[in-house]
Amino acid sequence: MKAIAVTPMMKDSLRIQDQDVPKQARNEILLKVQKVGICGTDRDIISGFYGEAPAGDNYLVLGHESLSRVSELGRSVRGFKKGDLVVPTVRRNCPENCVNCKAGESDMCLTGHYFEHGIKGLHGFAREFAITDASFVVKLPESLSDVGVLLEPMTIVEKGMLQTFLMQKARMKKWKPVKILVLGAGPVGLLATALLRVKGLDVDTVATRSEESLKAKLVEQTGSKYINSKVSPLSSLENKYDIVFELTGNTGVALEAQNLTGVNGVVSYLGVYMHEQETEDAGKIYTNLVLGNRIQFGSVNANKSYFTQGVKDLLAIRKRWNGFLEKMITTSVGIEQFGNAYTPQSQEEIKAVIEFGK
Amino acid sequence: MKAIAVTPMMKDSLRIQDQDVPKQARNEILLKVQKVGICGTDRDIISGFYGEAPAGDNYLVLGHESLSRVSELGRSVRGFKKGDLVVPTVRRNCPENCVNCKAGESDMCLTGHYFEHGIKGLHGFAREFAITDASFVVKLPESLSDVGVLLEPMTIVEKGMLQTFLMQKARMKKWKPVKILVLGAGPVGLLATALLRVKGLDVDTVATRSEESLKAKLVEQTGSKYINSKVSPLSSLENKYDIVFELTGNTGVALEAQNLTGVNGVVSYLGVYMHEQETEDAGKIYTNLVLGNRIQFGSVNANKSYFTQGVKDLLAIRKRWNGFLEKMITTSVGIEQFGNAYTPQSQEEIKAVIEFGK
Repeated sequence: MKAIAVTPMMKDSLRIQDQDVPKQARNEILLKVQKVGICGTDRDIISGFYGEAPAGDNYLVLGHESLSRVSELGRSVRGFKKGDLVVPTVRRNCPENCVNCKAGESDMCLTGHYFEHGIKGLHGFAREFAITDASFVVKLPESLSDVGVLLEPMTIVEKGMLQTFLMQKARMKKWKPVKILVLGAGPVGLLATALLRVKGLDVDTVATRSEESLKAKLVEQTGSKYINSKVSPLSSLENKYDIVFELTGNTGVALEAQNLTGVNGVVSYLGVYMHEQETEDAGKIYTNLVLGNRIQFGSVNANKSYFTQGVKDLLAIRKRWNGFLEKMITTSVGIEQFGNAYTPQSQEEIKAVIEFGK
Repeated sequence: MKAIAVTPMMKDSLRIQDQDVPKQARNEILLKVQKVGICGTDRDIISGFYGEAPAGDNYLVLGHESLSRVSELGRSVRGFKKGDLVVPTVRRNCPENCVNCKAGESDMCLTGHYFEHGIKGLHGFAREFAITDASFVVKLPESLSDVGVLLEPMTIVEKGMLQTFLMQKARMKKWKPVKILVLGAGPVGLLATALLRVKGLDVDTVATRSEESLKAKLVEQTGSKYINSKVSPLSSLENKYDIVFELTGNTGVALEAQNLTGVNGVVSYLGVYMHEQETEDAGKIYTNLVLGNRIQFGSVNANKSYFTQGVKDLLAIRKRWNGFLEKMITTSVGIEQFGNAYTPQSQEEIKAVIEFGK
């Protein structure tokens, strides 16, 4: 079978290679992979910035955003049948099985020795068949067979949003967010915009593409306001927001984000930032944090509970805005054209997907 | 009667002035002030950095850390009697009476139009008699008559600590902090150190004074480890802490604080920072925040619930470490020597207090 792999930490080592179809153990599922989505993490691995091969291998199969069908079941696996539409989570417990990993929250692993399919120490899902522990696999309804590959990016939104709400409700007797700012209209930004609208919140979403772009149209389809930051820079925004979701991965925007929250506000950071950008006034950051009772917090990865919630919310978004999720998938290529998925194919690209078959 | 006042925003306008004894309204208490504590906020007001006179006045009476006895009661005041030992809270509701102010959480006021005794729009307690709404007054047991003036700084600790615990417990199924770092051993740092020890946590406390200093000895009296950062710089600390309390108000330390937390860690910022210190790597701050699921949050002021809790915790600290609280009050002067309270009198100074009488 074919697999898309790199030699970790080696720039531009991306390739297709042949592998044997793996054999599931008694607690595992053999997945017939349908689709794999591409994100910035994949591009950073291809650029050699990070990535870690499984022990004993000198290559890493890519792919952490995926959609599969159940092909074979290990002997002790219950609750699945052949042909089920499924998505496996990405992170796996650390060898020490720390208290958080043990509690099903490997996304909050305390040792840092966790594994991640397609990123750190475990092969990913960018191959025709893959195996994984059945207890990390989530079932999807058949109606999501076209867009279920968006579940993993959705879980990033789910975690950032739930953690924001839990913290704010824990620390204040009264908290009723009204106005939310989403910085970035990539796949995570668009999913965040839609989910916030499903929850009845008032959303402004900022990106750098024009008001005529597909991103702008998708934002507006949800009844949110699209702001082109090339026309209206962040510093010109007059609103103060109850929550800001920072999804651009741009350090300058990350610094600006805090100024856009009102008192008792929260910035939820969900990107990874380029190093070495200077800020001239760190004192101001911390004074604002204190005098406004503000929170800045980061969130990475997502455990199974967020995948389960994500399935419900993808269904809610689809029900509300016809075609929204489908239009987010702007590039779809076969396995032989895999190179085209890792390099943006148009100015309008949002999510690129590799099709591994039906 | 005598009052210690400034002309707000005018450097070095500190003076004693004569005033009439105020008359309490039906919902108010006339306080016979016993002691007023001095902190950095007072010094910043004296330096002309901030401070706001009450409407119609061109001066501001200082003093937000205080201890009083009840002198007279308004006609509708219940639950107090003459001679009771009391401390009034500092912040008062905004004119709009926003949802948080209304709920008794003016420390989380949403409009920013709140008032603060001795700081913003209301005269403080650095005078022989003062009046305030009885619903913002907390009773203290007689046994705290010598150290009850430490209650207001204690409330800053109470709020920072409660908010930390509420947020962490809300966002994680399992969270059991073990090792805590306190940055700064001024009054708030020492009170935080002692309270964390009362809660059974393992505490390291960092300051710049020598290992022979009173601060170091007080830290060690609680069974915490004192770290002199002139000998062991923060960058040399090998531990990763579950919580870092940043109480130095130093921007360089504020920036370093985040590196000292472990994954899923929290930095609680409780100071106000000098502006314009550069950081060369803002990207690193935000990437660490994300990849470690970390929180940075600020907290300012404290509502009545923290004053009530603070009374209990001052009693617990006194019970556990004999003399600890008393030794924190290193300077105590009469009203005529008020100038000496606003300028450190020795290398060993921790808390300076002005005595207004018995």
